[in-house]
Amino acid sequence: MTNSFNTIGLIGKFADTSVASTLLALSRILIGRGCTVYLDRETSRNMDEHDLEIITRDEIGKRCDLAVTVGGDGTLLDAARGLVNFKVPILGINLGRLGFLVDISPNDMSKHINEILDGRYVEEHRILLNTTIESKNNPPSESDAFNDVVVHKWEVARMIETETYINGKFLNSMRSDGLIVSTPTGSTAYALSGGGPILEPDMDAIVLVPICPHTMSYRPIVIGGDSTIEIIVKDNNNSQAQVSCDGQINLGVVSGDKITIKKNKNVVRLIHPRQHNYYEILRAKLHWGGHF
Amino acid sequence: MTNSFNTIGLIGKFADTSVASTLLALSRILIGRGCTVYLDRETSRNMDEHDLEIITRDEIGKRCDLAVTVGGDGTLLDAARGLVNFKVPILGINLGRLGFLVDISPNDMSKHINEILDGRYVEEHRILLNTTIESKNNPPSESDAFNDVVVHKWEVARMIETETYINGKFLNSMRSDGLIVSTPTGSTAYALSGGGPILEPDMDAIVLVPICPHTMSYRPIVIGGDSTIEIIVKDNNNSQAQVSCDGQINLGVVSGDKITIKKNKNVVRLIHPRQHNYYEILRAKLHWGGHF
Amino acid sequence: MTNSFNTIGLIGKFADTSVASTLLALSRILIGRGCTVYLDRETSRNMDEHDLEIITRDEIGKRCDLAVTVGGDGTLLDAARGLVNFKVPILGINLGRLGFLVDISPNDMSKHINEILDGRYVEEHRILLNTTIESKNNPPSESDAFNDVVVHKWEVARMIETETYINGKFLNSMRSDGLIVSTPTGSTAYALSGGGPILEPDMDAIVLVPICPHTMSYRPIVIGGDSTIEIIVKDNNNSQAQVSCDGQINLGVVSGDKITIKKNKNVVRLIHPRQHNYYEILRAKLHWGGHF
Amino acid sequence: MTNSFNTIGLIGKFADTSVASTLLALSRILIGRGCTVYLDRETSRNMDEHDLEIITRDEIGKRCDLAVTVGGDGTLLDAARGLVNFKVPILGINLGRLGFLVDISPNDMSKHINEILDGRYVEEHRILLNTTIESKNNPPSESDAFNDVVVHKWEVARMIETETYINGKFLNSMRSDGLIVSTPTGSTAYALSGGGPILEPDMDAIVLVPICPHTMSYRPIVIGGDSTIEIIVKDNNNSQAQVSCDGQINLGVVSGDKITIKKNKNVVRLIHPRQHNYYEILRAKLHWGGHF
Repeated sequence: MTNSFNTIGLIGKFADTSVASTLLALSRILIGRGCTVYLDRETSRNMDEHDLEIITRDEIGKRCDLAVTVGGDGTLLDAARGLVNFKVPILGINLGRLGFLVDISPNDMSKHINEILDGRYVEEHRILLNTTIESKNNPPSESDAFNDVVVHKWEVARMIETETYINGKFLNSMRSDGLIVSTPTGSTAYALSGGGPILEPDMDAIVLVPICPHTMSYRPIVIGGDSTIEIIVKDNNNSQAQVSCDGQINLGVVSGDKITIKKNKNVVRLIHPRQHNYYEILRAKLHWGGHF
Repeated sequence: MTNSFNTIGLIGKFADTSVASTLLALSRILIGRGCTVYLDRETSRNMDEHDLEIITRDEIGKRCDLAVTVGGDGTLLDAARGLVNFKVPILGINLGRLGFLVDISPNDMSKHINEILDGRYVEEHRILLNTTIESKNNPPSESDAFNDVVVHKWEVARMIETETYINGKFLNSMRSDGLIVSTPTGSTAYALSGGGPILEPDMDAIVLVPICPHTMSYRPIVIGGDSTIEIIVKDNNNSQAQVSCDGQINLGVVSGDKITIKKNKNVVRLIHPRQHNYYEILRAKLHWGGHF
Repeated sequence: MTNSFNTIGLIGKFADTSVASTLLALSRILIGRGCTVYLDRETSRNMDEHDLEIITRDEIGKRCDLAVTVGGDGTLLDAARGLVNFKVPILGINLGRLGFLVDISPNDMSKHINEILDGRYVEEHRILLNTTIESKNNPPSESDAFNDVVVHKWEVARMIETETYINGKFLNSMRSDGLIVSTPTGSTAYALSGGGPILEPDMDAIVLVPICPHTMSYRPIVIGGDSTIEIIVKDNNNSQAQVSCDGQINLGVVSGDKITIKKNKNVVRLIHPRQHNYYEILRAKLHWGGHF
Repeated sequence: MTNSFNTIGLIGKFADTSVASTLLALSRILIGRGCTVYLDRETSRNMDEHDLEIITRDEIGKRCDLAVTVGGDGTLLDAARGLVNFKVPILGINLGRLGFLVDISPNDMSKHINEILDGRYVEEHRILLNTTIESKNNPPSESDAFNDVVVHKWEVARMIETETYINGKFLNSMRSDGLIVSTPTGSTAYALSGGGPILEPDMDAIVLVPICPHTMSYRPIVIGGDSTIEIIVKDNNNSQAQVSCDGQINLGVVSGDKITIKKNKNVVRLIHPRQHNYYEILRAKLHWGGHF
């Protein structure tokens, strides 16, 4: 009998030694199943004892047919951005605290990993956003975001002014603290704090959530996943702005710069145990009640 | 040269004589273009002088290749529900006040009608929701909604309790004043008052907006257009509930009844002038600013 | 040594036999301290065995220097409306589930009751709203509300239209599902579900919270506790409306009727254990986090 | 007959020459009434021709019995902060665009000024907040705010963590983009964009509005005007924060710093024409409808 996945790359939470034991236990299960296991170079810096072969993140993308992350949602977000263009599927193991993305706990790891290698799993596809910035001051820059792209004020107390276009058509101008452009995955992250709706994670849709808009009739807008969003930072009060991708990668913008956001042509491939239930995670994370 | 549309049914605002002159002017333009023009039976009750042939709404669906409504969004909503299964496209003329759906003003009517008959128009497809109720007390009932299906408390001051399932999976239970299940078209109607997001009108998506939920972490949820939504009214405090489709058709429900909501398999076909711009309507209706 | 309170009326949750044992335990503690104890007539219907003297709610108001409720917040709300004009202070014992108002659990009852009789307690004053309705169809009606007065649509799917005046000055007209006029006490009840702010409970202030207003720029408004609020139901679409006080007392209104809401000249006197901490209750009830 | 005010200081919008003609017209009216008129030193830099005596802002506070600002709300906010401790009343003239604070338009200026000097005016008192910062890294700093004190993240994409105490009692800990502490005056400014309620301007109350809180059950909280608010910035992720008073004065804070906010013991004295109507301004500024 063959495994569903045979060459597996392991990625742990950044700069966190507490993932070492779970990674080792995981590697033993995989090796016991006859898999070839590689360890991510960054992750290896937090592990003292192991005899796994160390390769770069890009090499994981090229050689592996599955990547497993151990950490929180942030660890999986980071892996997803790095691996999306290699089309390698990703499985997330949490460190004891359920995430929206990392839904396998270390206690259930052995059972779930075996089932998944046996072919009992579901694969889910999620969109990811690609952002490019055309700037008059700086060379063009570019980044991916799995949760959200946020254009926000920076080092200023006052609001920024932006103009938004969808597929080349003018949507609106806005004075606000910023604008969140979120994937369905990101709709339960910062966009939710900003008052946005929840989008089912596999939808091909994008949601724009204004942050503290000056005009009270602005609302979150949900648009199709194939839309091209252009945001122009306007020349007001010498305001400064910044573009953040997943709250981690920051790109500076000045007045007049154009931010273009489009779906990445590749999707993130998430692997879940067969009994995966998104609504169950939603209820647990948002403290919703169960049945009456 | 032939017209894009040749047999046209006219439908006016319900029980409103003020639409008569616009309908007459419209019929003259159409007859001048060589079209066959029918008048909706209901509408004819509010018109004294005309020599148009009168037919039922269903006959408009069967015989016409275009229906034109004169009135507000409510008039077009009503026509759309009646005509959707006949697949006849609909064009909306407003009575001087821009609607989200009726975007041609009487002043521009002649120009736009001629252009549309000449083939210069856009056709837009929008989803419509079908609701069926399985009740222990009543025979099954069924209705279409172009804007929204609202399950709400009725004749009671206290909240109702509902359980919601998406595609057979339990989503949540909720104590609230009710739940709005809205099409993208309805997202700028009652759902907006309830705090819902705006959905681009041609999206294949449905939004669920809780009305004054008791638990503060409930939020609007956007799901795919092919979803089946089941709502069960729970047996609490002898609460009573009602289901309203587009705020016009009311179906009674009691505890234990099951409301099933699905997309109608046919779409509403809306005809617009070629320069139709949804964002322009949005900015005008919601008092958003223009360019800085 | 004398007790702080000597003649005490006991009031249990309406039509609920489960309060009987707590009431009996409570009466024994009080009698043991030498207090005279009376039982509310309504409450006595749910108690089989006891030898307490039964008196009416009004008699409790006239004869007692303390009323103790056993039940939930609703039981205390009800008692507060009935007793406010007798100026008798009220203490609330819950049935195991913390309320915003009933903060003593049966387990701690003995300790807290003894401390309170020893004089170790805090007294808090809260405002209560009085509503009068001038109607063209009905005789004038009047009621008190400790949480909120809600003017809401009734037996209709469509919105109602209201005009609001503060101290005789026109505030605004509104199309909505209704309007909540809430005391600080009520700000954590229905008003919170409607999107209102939390008001510290001892503030002399009233908050107006619109329910699903059609216009997006309507917001909750906080006004001084001495304000007179007048709400006129307008004659639109034959809409029907209802006025609910604390969700329990319902007064019918028709178009043209005037609802006048003012603070009751007497305050509700709440007795709490000395360590009472409103913010602690708020954090527990709203699932806020504690210290980092 | 004597004037209500005799020694008047004129203050124009900062760095804006367009106020010069209105200031000159205003000074002529006042001199014509026999008033002594002084010009603010800063303002004088934007005026070429005038023969008014120039004095500092502090001298206006000491010598004048009325200050008149010409500009927008920001000009009056600035003047109010500078003059509050001198107890000099302030009158605001706008530059053609109605403000929440500056309610006299240049067109009506002559009529209103004459009426006010004749004694036909209303005086309104508004609270102002005083902020002090105790820092381990910096010397203590202090500032006044007429609208709001905002603790917000600074130069970071991620949320800040704060703990809030009211009158020494722990209220809550929060992860968010920041916290707005607003006067009733500021409740229609940034706090409104953040989702806060409107407070009647003369209330003795303060509202705390969380900005994009991570936990969904956080809500604006209204507390009494005599409260002492302490906010502690917690040591998380090396986050950085900043305190802004009226969006103009910025004070840096680092983890562990304590921000203490209290009402200034002096109130801002605003002078309005006798027909001043706050609700009228509210309806105009927020685009609320008038009577049905």
